[in-house]
Amino acid sequence: MKPGRSRRVRVNRVEEGAVRTPEDRVATEEPMEIRLEWREGSGVERETPVAVTMRTPGDDFDLAAGFLLTEGVVSSAAAIGGVRYCAKVSPQEYNVVSVTLSDPGAFDPSSLARNFYITSSCGVCGKASLEAVQNLGCENLDGVEFDLPARIVSALPADLRASQPVFQATGGIHAAAAFDADGRILVSREDVGRHNAVDKVVGALAMRGDIDLAEPNGSTGLREGPNRRRPVLGIVVSGRASFEIMQKAAMAHMPAVVAVGAPSSLAVEFAREFGMTLAGFTTDRSFNTYSRPDRISLLEVT
Amino acid sequence: MKPGRSRRVRVNRVEEGAVRTPEDRVATEEPMEIRLEWREGSGVERETPVAVTMRTPGDDFDLAAGFLLTEGVVSSAAAIGGVRYCAKVSPQEYNVVSVTLSDPGAFDPSSLARNFYITSSCGVCGKASLEAVQNLGCENLDGVEFDLPARIVSALPADLRASQPVFQATGGIHAAAAFDADGRILVSREDVGRHNAVDKVVGALAMRGDIDLAEPNGSTGLREGPNRRRPVLGIVVSGRASFEIMQKAAMAHMPAVVAVGAPSSLAVEFAREFGMTLAGFTTDRSFNTYSRPDRISLLEVT
Repeated sequence: MKPGRSRRVRVNRVEEGAVRTPEDRVATEEPMEIRLEWREGSGVERETPVAVTMRTPGDDFDLAAGFLLTEGVVSSAAAIGGVRYCAKVSPQEYNVVSVTLSDPGAFDPSSLARNFYITSSCGVCGKASLEAVQNLGCENLDGVEFDLPARIVSALPADLRASQPVFQATGGIHAAAAFDADGRILVSREDVGRHNAVDKVVGALAMRGDIDLAEPNGSTGLREGPNRRRPVLGIVVSGRASFEIMQKAAMAHMPAVVAVGAPSSLAVEFAREFGMTLAGFTTDRSFNTYSRPDRISLLEVT
Repeated sequence: MKPGRSRRVRVNRVEEGAVRTPEDRVATEEPMEIRLEWREGSGVERETPVAVTMRTPGDDFDLAAGFLLTEGVVSSAAAIGGVRYCAKVSPQEYNVVSVTLSDPGAFDPSSLARNFYITSSCGVCGKASLEAVQNLGCENLDGVEFDLPARIVSALPADLRASQPVFQATGGIHAAAAFDADGRILVSREDVGRHNAVDKVVGALAMRGDIDLAEPNGSTGLREGPNRRRPVLGIVVSGRASFEIMQKAAMAHMPAVVAVGAPSSLAVEFAREFGMTLAGFTTDRSFNTYSRPDRISLLEVT
């Protein structure tokens, strides 16, 4: 049975010296394994486990595709041939997602090793972490020009919240959403893991052709995706901005990240190094920018 | 130079249509690698990288010890011979921590494999994740008896917040604290990663002898640590309760977890499976309990 996004639980609610035992809902957390199918030079078919992540079920294919793209395991949505649940592992099939490649023989297993370099032994410091992302093919976005009114930045958290059905039911789940230059939400996703919510958004955008990770827009300015939808400007996240959130946004060529919470030191360094505009502590009345504030215009603030 | 817990950054603060450029502080995020030194049966000395975690510098030795204990890599504080920064990797030595064993020849490298089983391929579902923790040596705490007044539960978030200097400076960092049966905070630690904050608390308690992970208290009730300090009852965390938070608390034999935020479905299942009392959405006026509410008494609620 396919797991739901939230589950009913009986709780003891203690309030003002009294106890009630209502039924409540909690966000579902279940492990999901991502596997990659490819072919060795010798012609042998391989299925390699890439990662297991604790996630909220739903949009599992977006999550698998987004993870592979933002971690640099595959370089474009076109490289992904298909995504499906793994029928071999019944009855837990809905927790194992298998990704096939459009050219199964072209996969370079060392891309998995490159990915692990970020969280590996040599050069363990923030600067080395930034360099590792550069080695994944992430380019500087300083050349991307845009002018985002401050009132749009301030409106994003409420728009994100409005797109969160599971949060409204449970009060305990993260969300991420891609937005365009007019502040319109293009894709919104929820997950108990912040990084998973971002991967789901990137995966959804990439699989429907709204962003093309193989064609960076850093030097040419923002442009529409291959299927002529509105161009993606950035991502808004419900929590704090950490290194991994910045990496995932940068890998998707998004020059703007708006966080409801605080950024970490490495998120700020990341934004400055890669030419991204980073806003934090964003409310309907105020926010901070930590990098490239010149792209945000004040004229329309009320 | 040893990295600090927070860093100064210049920000553009947009508020009410005006911009100021104050100096602000953000929580430091830097990678830290944990290495384990041991000896093969043949007598060969080995240094194995165990994990890299993005953490806030400070209490790095507690973090390394706590991680090894709560992930089941080592089974007791007594098994840890020493913890130090790795002088070999200058100038980044403060981001690499090396743990030596009191009996370097007794280490079983398969304990690393066991650990990875949790996030590995076979049996990928919530139930299998719970079984994997059982295999790490985590026992059921149903037999631990205690009676915690509801007013103490409600007071924990404010006490935790009061013990968070970096949060007060940055507004963006998680915290965890161990408390005793009177609600007194025994150890409090901060980190950009919730799981790291818990590991720092467990590591600090274990290294000073306040908890003994080699001697579970499940069957005998709570008792004082080897050095006769007050017994640890549970842990309070600043955010949500997920599977990994429950695992780390259970590995440290703590029968109570109090979360300021929401629990996930798997956190609730974990608490019920392992006989732990789990509270969520905890404020100074109310909270929910999801498991073993009989251990919380209402008499003193005001």
